[in-house]
Order: sequence, then C-alpha cells, then structure tokens
Amino acid sequence: MQVAVGKDKHFRFELIHQSRKSRARVGRIHTPHGIIDTPSFVAVGTNGTVKTLDSRTVQDLGVQLMFCNTYHLLVQPGTEIIQNAGGLHKFMKRDLPLITDSGGFQVFSLKYGGVAAELKSKGAKKTSGGCVVKVTEDGVAFRSYRDGHKIFLSPETSIQAQKALGADIIVAFDELLPYHIDKRYQQLSLDRTHRWAQRSLEEHKKNVKQQALYAVIHGGVDCDMRKQSCDFLTKHDFDGFGIGGSVGKNRQEMHEMLSFMAPMLPGDKPRHLLGIGDLPSLELCVPLGIDTFDSAHPTKAARHGLFFTKNGGLRILKSGNCNNFGSVQPGCVCHTCKHYSVAYLQHLFKANEPTVQALATIHNVHFMVQLMAEYRRRILAGDV
Amino acid sequence: MQVAVGKDKHFRFELIHQSRKSRARVGRIHTPHGIIDTPSFVAVGTNGTVKTLDSRTVQDLGVQLMFCNTYHLLVQPGTEIIQNAGGLHKFMKRDLPLITDSGGFQVFSLKYGGVAAELKSKGAKKTSGGCVVKVTEDGVAFRSYRDGHKIFLSPETSIQAQKALGADIIVAFDELLPYHIDKRYQQLSLDRTHRWAQRSLEEHKKNVKQQALYAVIHGGVDCDMRKQSCDFLTKHDFDGFGIGGSVGKNRQEMHEMLSFMAPMLPGDKPRHLLGIGDLPSLELCVPLGIDTFDSAHPTKAARHGLFFTKNGGLRILKSGNCNNFGSVQPGCVCHTCKHYSVAYLQHLFKANEPTVQALATIHNVHFMVQLMAEYRRRILAGDV
Repeated sequence: MQVAVGKDKHFRFELIHQSRKSRARVGRIHTPHGIIDTPSFVAVGTNGTVKTLDSRTVQDLGVQLMFCNTYHLLVQPGTEIIQNAGGLHKFMKRDLPLITDSGGFQVFSLKYGGVAAELKSKGAKKTSGGCVVKVTEDGVAFRSYRDGHKIFLSPETSIQAQKALGADIIVAFDELLPYHIDKRYQQLSLDRTHRWAQRSLEEHKKNVKQQALYAVIHGGVDCDMRKQSCDFLTKHDFDGFGIGGSVGKNRQEMHEMLSFMAPMLPGDKPRHLLGIGDLPSLELCVPLGIDTFDSAHPTKAARHGLFFTKNGGLRILKSGNCNNFGSVQPGCVCHTCKHYSVAYLQHLFKANEPTVQALATIHNVHFMVQLMAEYRRRILAGDV
Repeated sequence: MQVAVGKDKHFRFELIHQSRKSRARVGRIHTPHGIIDTPSFVAVGTNGTVKTLDSRTVQDLGVQLMFCNTYHLLVQPGTEIIQNAGGLHKFMKRDLPLITDSGGFQVFSLKYGGVAAELKSKGAKKTSGGCVVKVTEDGVAFRSYRDGHKIFLSPETSIQAQKALGADIIVAFDELLPYHIDKRYQQLSLDRTHRWAQRSLEEHKKNVKQQALYAVIHGGVDCDMRKQSCDFLTKHDFDGFGIGGSVGKNRQEMHEMLSFMAPMLPGDKPRHLLGIGDLPSLELCVPLGIDTFDSAHPTKAARHGLFFTKNGGLRILKSGNCNNFGSVQPGCVCHTCKHYSVAYLQHLFKANEPTVQALATIHNVHFMVQLMAEYRRRILAGDV
C-alpha cells in the first residue's frame, strides 16, 4: 500500500504506535519511492547491489530501504554515468527507497580500517598509505582505491554527488572518528562536523529535489559531546537523524549511550543507527526507538556460511549438517528454505560453488525482513 | 508437454523430423524425468549446480538436460550422502533430466590439464603430481584433489556410482586420450575402452533402474580407429552414443572427423557430443545430426564478461559500454535483459560484484536455450 505524498511533503515520518513499555515505536517513513515500515532493516548495497543478489530479488524479498555508498559510486562508475542513466534508482533498477551516505564513513575506514580492526589496534592508523586522507575545514582529500586519482569531498561536493545519485534519503557530510581518539581532536572534529552539517543543509536547500537530508549525531562515547551534538543538530531543519561514530566498544556501552541520547531526539523525525544491525543489537535498540538500521552483517555472515534462524545461527559447514536433509529453518518460506536442504547447501559451500552465497544471502535477508515485521507486530501488541 | 514413458520403455529417442538437406534432425529424448527436445544444449553443473545459478533458476530457463560430473560428486559430497538424499535429482532439487559422466574425463584432465593446455603443450603430462593417476586393465587410480585419499574407478565402480547418483542418462567408463598420443598406446587404450564399455554394460544390466547407458566412441583423430569404435560399440545394446576424445585440433578437423563418423551411427539412438558447445561448433555439428551438446563455455564466458548476442559476443568491459543504457540484446526476454542495462552490468563487473556473474550466466544460458529452439525451428522449416 502506497500513500500519496504531496510535492511539498515528499518526505514525512508517520508515527503509527508508541509503545508504553519502552521508547519502541512503529511508524512509516513516506518517501517519493514509497513507504518504509519502521523499525526496518536496511540492506547494504555498497556498489549499487546487495552482494550476490540483483535489485529485483532484493525488492521481491521485501527490502524497503537499501543503503548505497557515495564514495564507492563516485570511484566507480562515477556520478556522471549514473546521472546519464537517470539517477541511481534507474541505473540499478530499484523502484523502492534508497539512502546514500555522505562518504564520511570512508574517511574513517581508509584511515583506520574496519571497526573491529580499529578496536583491536587501539586506534593505530593504517600503515598502508595507499589512500592518503587529509582532513581540513574545507573537506577531505582521498585517493581512489582503484586508480589513485584524487577525490575531494566537502559538505558541498558530497551533497552535490548525492543529488546526482538521487537517493530518497541523503546524509550530511561528517567525520567518523574511531573509538580510540584524543579528546581535544574529538571536540575539534565534532564542532567541524556540526559546521559541515550546516553547510550540507545549505547546499541541500538550494535544490531539494524531493530528497530528505539526515544529519549525523556524533560525539563518540563522550556523553557531554553527544549532548552537544543532539542539541546542535536537532535545532536545524534536518528531516531525520543518523547516529554515527563509535557508540562504544561493546553492546553494554552502546546501550548506555543510546539510552542517554534517546530522549534528546525529536519524536516526529526518523532515527537511523548507522552500520549496526546484528541481532543482539537490534534487540537492545528497537526498544530505544531507533527506526532504521543498516548493516552488512546479515549478508556478510551469509557469505561465510552462517544462516540466521530463530534458534540462533546455523553454521552450514558444521560436520553434522552433511546428512541434514531438512531446510535451514523449518517453516521458512524463502526461496532457499523452500527448495534446498542443509546438506545440499553444505555441499555447495564445500565445493566452493558461488551459487550458495546467493542462496544464503536470500535466506538471511528474508530473515531480517521477517524479524523486523515481527518487531513491529510485537510493539503493536504491547510486548516491546 | 510430457509424454508418458512406460516402465519397459523408460528411455527412447523419438525422431520428429529428418532434414533432407543435411543429417540434421529434430527429435525428442524421453526419460523418466521428462523430455529433451533435440538438438539441445546441455548445461554443465559439475558439482550439482550450474555455477552462480540454482537448480530452480536453471529449470526456469528451460534447460532440459543438465550434466554433472561423477568424479567431482564422488570426491564431494560422496555418493552416500546423495543416496541418503534420495538421489541426485532430489539432492539438488532438479525435476528434469540429468546426465552424469563416467569419471573418465578426469583421467585426462588430471594427467594432461585442460584441452587447450594439452594442445599447446603438445601432450606433455602435467608435472604437478598431486593426483597420481594409474591406468590398468582393471581401471584407474586417482587421488582426491581435496584430501588426497585414493579413489579407484573401474567400469563397475563408475557404473555403481552413477547408479547411486541416479541420473537419467549415465555413461560407460572410458579413457579420454589427448590430441598428441602415440599410436600404439592409442590402439591399446581404444581396445581397453571397448572392453570397459562392455563391462559397463554388463554392470548396468544387473540393475537398470530406469537409467539409459551411453557408450563413448573414441579413436581420436584416426579415421580407422574411429571406425573400429563405431563398429564395435554400435553392435552392443547401448541406449545412445557419446562422441568423446579429441576430434581434432581445430574446427575443420572436427568437422571432417564428425562428417566421417556420422553415417556410422544408428539413426534411432541419440548422439551426444561431449564437451563441445561453442557457437561455431554448433553451426557445424547440428547439420551432422548431433542431438545433444554439453559445454561449460557459455557459462564460463559469462563469468568472464562475454555476453552472447545474435551479432556475436558483447564484451561487457569494453569502454564504450559505460554509457550504453540499453539491454545486452534488444528484444531478449531473459531476466537480465528485461531489467538491467549494459552500463549497469559493466559497472557491476568493474566493481567485482558477484551479482553480475549470475546475471551474465542467466543471459547466456537463456541464449543457448533459444538458439537450440531456433535450430529446431530451422530444421523443421527445411533451412538446415
């Protein structure tokens, strides 16, 4: 069911139900490409596709919002080709809502590597200086990981790139800091990220193009800075808020920080938790009123042979599975469970057949979509 | 449309039309899992799946016969697991006909490498002795490429393994020789392959299990030996004939040899050309009355970015394709062409997204299925 969204109201958050038990809520984000029922899992399709699946399959699985990375699309194929195609939706043949990030996440990952690697290394910068990053007031200078050519991203160029891509939701340019960071630099970066958010908003307002702009709340694991960020950003006319940066080195820290922030976020705007979507985190964050979660975890886990089930993960390579001719999750109606046995899937994994990575991804994405529908049902029933 | 096949006639070749212009013919192979319209392209699914696609997709594409490799399935997952699943059809969830080979092909490829490599090396044996192969009158001793354990294949054990797998069509155990081979060894091997074919037939007759047994005609590029092989094998009660071994180092030699052999093959039994299915070879061999062709070429080409079209191959990475927003083949109704542009497919290739290998494979398999339907139409119309 698609509700018409007027030209002046191309984007709005509709609150359907607010839990009395927790901050959990059921809502709908209306966008030019349709509705996102919240809380919702947002599938990650970095290069304009969910790894191993095609756009039509992702739509058929009921993924209402998909996340693409501006930095990657800038590097390959570049915004010009996507503009020539008529925008990212048409380029990748997706009819449903899209969100792009600002490129700020790559400042982090090029400098520090992945989140887990950074936590482990206690903040040591990556030594392979293939993609030198220089951060100034103006913006960030990268080198393309493909051919080494220089890319400069500022609030203005990031928003312009995201305008060219044309996602329904775009994100203000920010600097993502690691968990281990010097306090003085953190405050300096936070203030700059706030100025960047303002500049992003100004650039966005020049040509809204029916897009919604989210700001990203930063401040790391420092409550005072998180409060500063909430106070500052919620005063401005953003359409929604992402929660970015490190929210802690473990789930307990994350839960404490998000509990602290939740009351500071306006109730009439959607909240997106950036890059977190593992199952225990969802269980903690849905009751805090987070509306959308993007995470590559379910699809990455699938490619490594971890199938999600209601009773925990099924590791397909476990030896006992070689004679299990039942489906991964009895009763599951996904294409994979409807047709293939655990034993066959294990065989395909052992034989290094790429087919199975797609079959596993289908199952895990279907699982996530069902899980979020179940959360919405439980919130409506007063159970969350 | 499926014609009922009686228990006593679980397998038969029905001639629909014999061309007057050439030896080309349109027919139907009736099997316990349905009909194969001939001439037909046989998709290769070595490990029980076509690379990047799942069984349901392959069926939906109209692939009426699929080829699996006994040697690979013996090594992983082993026949016991497939038997426990109720046979290969049930294990891989394929409802349509299957053919398995004897394992003889692997004698060749373990000893000499691929066909192209052997031609280039002028018959030098592979030096990496990881999988020692010993050929005796009794059979062939391998080592598993996975864990090094010994595997012994003889006519009897090959047929027993193929009985356990349960394909509709199985193949007599043979030795596949390279193009460059000593004449004396070739005659010795041919005679032994004939004795192996007899032993295979005897083993098969003990328990037919509604399977059809093909013998493989050998003799390499020696007309006299090819004639010996046709004479010998067609005297026995095989259900069909594979043409195996090297039929030449180029298409001209292949065409000459197959033209020489064609009149020696009985008209009432199907003929399968083993491992050849590139487009120019099909154009040469369909008029010679070959009924089925298995080849990994269309799927391998797809994974390397070569899309088949009516005007030749489209190399997706060609720079001009970056702004081509049309489909690979205008008018093509395959999933890939229906939804995605050349520019998007190029982008996915450049971004190393595995998604595109499946999309390319879908297109090329669909192309092959349509091409063979077109051959049948042209034969019926008297054009071939």
